[in-house]
Amino acid sequence: MSILGKDFICTEDWELNEILRVLALASEMKKDPCNPRWVTALKYKSFLMLFYNPSLRTHMSFETAICELGGTAICRNPEMNWKKSKNGLSSSEALKDIARVISRYVDGVGIRITMDAVSRYGDGHKFIRDFAHFSDVPVIGMADDRVHPCQGLADIMGWSERYSPNGDVDSLKGKTLLLTWGSSGFTRPLASVQSHLLLASKLGMNIKIAYPEGYELDGDVCEQTRKNCKKNNATYEVLHDSNSGYEGAHVVYARNWVTRDAYENGEFQFQKEINRAFSFKDWIVTEEKMKRTEKAIFANPMPIDRGREAEDAVIESEYSVIYDVAENRKHTQKALLSLILGEVK
Amino acid sequence: MSILGKDFICTEDWELNEILRVLALASEMKKDPCNPRWVTALKYKSFLMLFYNPSLRTHMSFETAICELGGTAICRNPEMNWKKSKNGLSSSEALKDIARVISRYVDGVGIRITMDAVSRYGDGHKFIRDFAHFSDVPVIGMADDRVHPCQGLADIMGWSERYSPNGDVDSLKGKTLLLTWGSSGFTRPLASVQSHLLLASKLGMNIKIAYPEGYELDGDVCEQTRKNCKKNNATYEVLHDSNSGYEGAHVVYARNWVTRDAYENGEFQFQKEINRAFSFKDWIVTEEKMKRTEKAIFANPMPIDRGREAEDAVIESEYSVIYDVAENRKHTQKALLSLILGEVK
Amino acid sequence: MSILGKDFICTEDWELNEILRVLALASEMKKDPCNPRWVTALKYKSFLMLFYNPSLRTHMSFETAICELGGTAICRNPEMNWKKSKNGLSSSEALKDIARVISRYVDGVGIRITMDAVSRYGDGHKFIRDFAHFSDVPVIGMADDRVHPCQGLADIMGWSERYSPNGDVDSLKGKTLLLTWGSSGFTRPLASVQSHLLLASKLGMNIKIAYPEGYELDGDVCEQTRKNCKKNNATYEVLHDSNSGYEGAHVVYARNWVTRDAYENGEFQFQKEINRAFSFKDWIVTEEKMKRTEKAIFANPMPIDRGREAEDAVIESEYSVIYDVAENRKHTQKALLSLILGEVK
Repeated sequence: MSILGKDFICTEDWELNEILRVLALASEMKKDPCNPRWVTALKYKSFLMLFYNPSLRTHMSFETAICELGGTAICRNPEMNWKKSKNGLSSSEALKDIARVISRYVDGVGIRITMDAVSRYGDGHKFIRDFAHFSDVPVIGMADDRVHPCQGLADIMGWSERYSPNGDVDSLKGKTLLLTWGSSGFTRPLASVQSHLLLASKLGMNIKIAYPEGYELDGDVCEQTRKNCKKNNATYEVLHDSNSGYEGAHVVYARNWVTRDAYENGEFQFQKEINRAFSFKDWIVTEEKMKRTEKAIFANPMPIDRGREAEDAVIESEYSVIYDVAENRKHTQKALLSLILGEVK
Repeated sequence: MSILGKDFICTEDWELNEILRVLALASEMKKDPCNPRWVTALKYKSFLMLFYNPSLRTHMSFETAICELGGTAICRNPEMNWKKSKNGLSSSEALKDIARVISRYVDGVGIRITMDAVSRYGDGHKFIRDFAHFSDVPVIGMADDRVHPCQGLADIMGWSERYSPNGDVDSLKGKTLLLTWGSSGFTRPLASVQSHLLLASKLGMNIKIAYPEGYELDGDVCEQTRKNCKKNNATYEVLHDSNSGYEGAHVVYARNWVTRDAYENGEFQFQKEINRAFSFKDWIVTEEKMKRTEKAIFANPMPIDRGREAEDAVIESEYSVIYDVAENRKHTQKALLSLILGEVK
Repeated sequence: MSILGKDFICTEDWELNEILRVLALASEMKKDPCNPRWVTALKYKSFLMLFYNPSLRTHMSFETAICELGGTAICRNPEMNWKKSKNGLSSSEALKDIARVISRYVDGVGIRITMDAVSRYGDGHKFIRDFAHFSDVPVIGMADDRVHPCQGLADIMGWSERYSPNGDVDSLKGKTLLLTWGSSGFTRPLASVQSHLLLASKLGMNIKIAYPEGYELDGDVCEQTRKNCKKNNATYEVLHDSNSGYEGAHVVYARNWVTRDAYENGEFQFQKEINRAFSFKDWIVTEEKMKRTEKAIFANPMPIDRGREAEDAVIESEYSVIYDVAENRKHTQKALLSLILGEVK
């Protein structure tokens, strides 16, 4: 197995053992951040991050990850620089030229391009795939409108830390995940949710998805999740009730997401989505609901909408893993970058 | 005395001997920037700077300070990323969550949030205090609407370099500082002025403050300054005449500041403040005025408004310390960061 | 010959042997990027880049160059921070103060300020000269409205790599360059074009310049180019026909540029220039035209307007050097920075 030089755009592009290799190394790195085996893993290497959408966690966790491996992080908000030609009356540089030139300068590229940076569901994911096609250096997806594979890794690491003293990922096999939609004004893309469905099912978890009708997820992602469950003899269930599904759950993952067709004339309709989301106020995780689970942990990839996606008491509880998961973004990405771009002794 | 891990939000939070320790180390670092004792003081460490207001000196002096100590500087303009929810119709991430998550990624945080980034005098200072409350890593104030402690350190270092061959801070004890308001279109916050009043009085200088009526400083800051003077048997005087106070002065510090109540509906009224400041044209430091001092040095934390806060001849004179003070921002912050975050052998 | 500490604002400011020294070192560095002779050439050094105009290649090639030499790159978009005073009713910091303060923090400064960042042709170049006058540290031009000396170096390196196995610059002597204007919506400044005219003529190439009437280049630059040609016994010719000049050419360099007088009330008239450029559709490099050359290489400093400046087939051909030239930005700038700021063992 060689991960060196591979793109990481969707967890489904990778073999299970490749993903397990990343998670195992992430655990080692978390325990011993300054070990000489990795503190120079990115020496003389640079990694470019293109943020078509802003970010707190992704941006900061990548930047610190690169720094802790001895590399150089370069950040750009390209919509401010390169997307000059919206009306077609001027010119803009071809994607193939941008990707080829960038490949001459840096050792790897991360791209974040979600929902409101594009005009149609799926165009963000396509953009990253196209960029990777023309790039000579590896490309890592840092969240698009379809998937967020790095968030998926951090989730799994955070959950397995709670179910096994050594953070053994096998401990999640056979456990039940309830993914429940949350009312919120954050208008979150489907990316995090879909990536962790793919990954949790790949690792053998039973899947329950709960959301108000109208918030259907991407059909291809659901189909792949179902296949993964079947292969692992795990269950797959869809619910449309904010109060069901808690029984038997080991992980409750609450998260707002938008409807996929929320574009008008290519512009994402934020306020319309917010109004719609606010009309489903019962879709909140409460202490009462959590009591009906199998002492489940509570997860959310953040930002979390306090009082809407979950009650404060849930967020502040012992069983909440949200800050651990956020921290794990750094450790999983350190492992990923080391294996893709660098050298771990 | 251990400074390791302490916040630095206001000089009054620190003991005098702690501040003297920083200044002494800054002098050593200035003389010998590449000494192995400190070139790796921030190895594997990262420091996040949140700029709610832009900056030349603060930004660049922190960034180069961190680099010269072997650390990683991370910069953000968070108003572009995180302050999405102004109208209350959408959601925004809770400060406690931002602070907790950031604490998982970096080793320290600097925050700049002055006047026009907030809706009311004091809210910037409060924001930094609140952030520090939820942060697990030390927080340094990089200028708020109330104080600018790092500027204070650089001022004191620059002045004592002129009064003692070794930059001995004791040389300022018993000397007289004239702080005089300046006419300018820069609309400066009260922060620098108030920090150096607190610090100069703590170090035993006599204080004279001159400003047009209506430009009163923060009452709590004045009260603390008066107490510091009393404790040191130093004098404290307030004047309202642009031509007085020069007699007996050893340091003339000229600086524009705004009135504290210059908000309407939460928006800072720049043009109104500029018009008001321009109506006090005599409040300029001239060569003639400087001749009446005790061969005083001329200070200003910059940017300086040439021809308004001071005549060009004053700024370009031998007794002007403005560029030395600007440079000292770097050295004092290197000392501060080393002692708070790192390790000096 | 000592290059240490020199500004690099226009290639004409430097002796030929100084330029050859940079190009020779760039070739060495390209072959062996991690050689211990230069991986620490900028240790403890920082270089500030001021971008009054955004950039892909310049920005990224400088940032990676500095990183590969062990230095710290600091980037600013100063129009967002320091150009507050457009209406003259407020104040803005004097250029001399900005330059002097910056000199206290960093070891060198690069400035990019082209066309639309100024109100009149030539003001960008003048700004860099003025900044350098007040700066105590060396200044490198990263493109202004008149010249782009770093692009010139990368062009020459890319072309000579094709005419000599060792990239020997002498191989260009006596060869013929056709510089031809290109129809495009990119509204490019004259800087790249003028820098390579100056440099190619300095190195002994024959010069042919072709453009539609009205697109005259800077008279001083043309005069200097003519002088350089005369000194080297090379020819100099101007054409106004999109179809001529290919015969005998060894390098075809196609590039859009704007008219110099395209300002109205100090604002650059983009759409007017685009409409004008689009009216000259024959000014495109085609495979047919390239066949009439002496097996010429095809060059362009990018971004390139596919289907307007040149046909896709030309851009994708074996004789296209555009990506090599883009890559050479990094290598030539590494050599330049090492010799100006640092130390190559």
